[in-house]
Amino acid sequence: MSDTFDRLFATVASRRGADADSSYTASLFARGRGRIAQKLGEEATETVIAAMGPDARKIVPEAADLIYHLCVLLADAGLTLDDVRAELARREGTSGHEEKAARGPRPLSFRAE
Amino acid sequence: MSDTFDRLFATVASRRGADADSSYTASLFARGRGRIAQKLGEEATETVIAAMGPDARKIVPEAADLIYHLCVLLADAGLTLDDVRAELARREGTSGHEEKAARGPRPLSFRAE
Amino acid sequence: MSDTFDRLFATVASRRGADADSSYTASLFARGRGRIAQKLGEEATETVIAAMGPDARKIVPEAADLIYHLCVLLADAGLTLDDVRAELARREGTSGHEEKAARGPRPLSFRAE
Amino acid sequence: MSDTFDRLFATVASRRGADADSSYTASLFARGRGRIAQKLGEEATETVIAAMGPDARKIVPEAADLIYHLCVLLADAGLTLDDVRAELARREGTSGHEEKAARGPRPLSFRAE
Repeated sequence: MSDTFDRLFATVASRRGADADSSYTASLFARGRGRIAQKLGEEATETVIAAMGPDARKIVPEAADLIYHLCVLLADAGLTLDDVRAELARREGTSGHEEKAARGPRPLSFRAE
Repeated sequence: MSDTFDRLFATVASRRGADADSSYTASLFARGRGRIAQKLGEEATETVIAAMGPDARKIVPEAADLIYHLCVLLADAGLTLDDVRAELARREGTSGHEEKAARGPRPLSFRAE
Repeated sequence: MSDTFDRLFATVASRRGADADSSYTASLFARGRGRIAQKLGEEATETVIAAMGPDARKIVPEAADLIYHLCVLLADAGLTLDDVRAELARREGTSGHEEKAARGPRPLSFRAE
Repeated sequence: MSDTFDRLFATVASRRGADADSSYTASLFARGRGRIAQKLGEEATETVIAAMGPDARKIVPEAADLIYHLCVLLADAGLTLDDVRAELARREGTSGHEEKAARGPRPLSFRAE
């Protein structure tokens, strides 16, 4: 559990069911899936805005916020970062174009190629 | 380099400057920051939609797509996943409310607490 | 029906139930709510990107796309532009802060003030 | 000026340069383009979430918020709702597929057809 992302996820997941007043994470779980999804969308918008700005370093805290809220969403849905790793690992053997063809026109999924 | 996310990032980063026709990743770099940011926003929307649907498992491929495009954005900006890890590690010692107070009213950033 | 927005909405609404191959609008209705919502999110991202760019005129076609897809969503849900007008008219007599207080902490809604 | 959308836009535009404390709209202008774009993205996400929920009526206030923030963005950029109407009117004579072909692969723009 030494990876930062895994520590983040473990901490987030440990807050499920905690008193909503005990932490920001607990309050997100308490407000439910719609609120968590909304925050994910907001952080993505902030990442896009930082990406279009003049200072690339400003992408970093937005990317951190985005990954944090993605961890909250995964935990809320009973999923883990390892589920995402497994999906990415599964794609390693195929090209993005093959991946796309195999999954139909939508939704698209991509892999590093 | 055995972590899946690091392998993904390394593969993505290796495509910078490659022929746009050689891979989907190379074509994204060739189209530039605006297109990369647009794809990040699209994948976030798809993640939100999956999050609101009845089948939680559908979040996984969307989360994978989101992380993939985040890797492309980071690499395009000369950043790395380790920059994001460093930001998250920096936050580990402070609460989200302290973090928010330290950074002013906007943009918000959060940490696992 | 001389207003451009109303003509747009009327044309969009007339395509509900039409053969998916007959027009882009008809194909959106055929693909369903998730796809329509996804397109709305994509166009919003494109509007954000145009907003952050150097040429303000590029906001205009993105705003047009956004309104077009909003019309498709409204029509798909059995709603109309006049429902949105009624909501905006309802808010005209109250300030944004009053509006916010009346509706609770989330979701926020705003009015011109 | 009897149309609700035009009244909304006129009220919004009249707040440019006003004291940031005088209204929510004035505070948005004071915070600048990035904040306005961020709010537009947030409202789009909320519209997407409402679109995927069980109660279609909840789309209406989110659509109103989205249009309100679009008006703020247009006004901030020196544009008007009539600029968007002109763009939509321009498209009335061409099909979406023709429109797409004329403007190149990206960004896409659509029209009612």
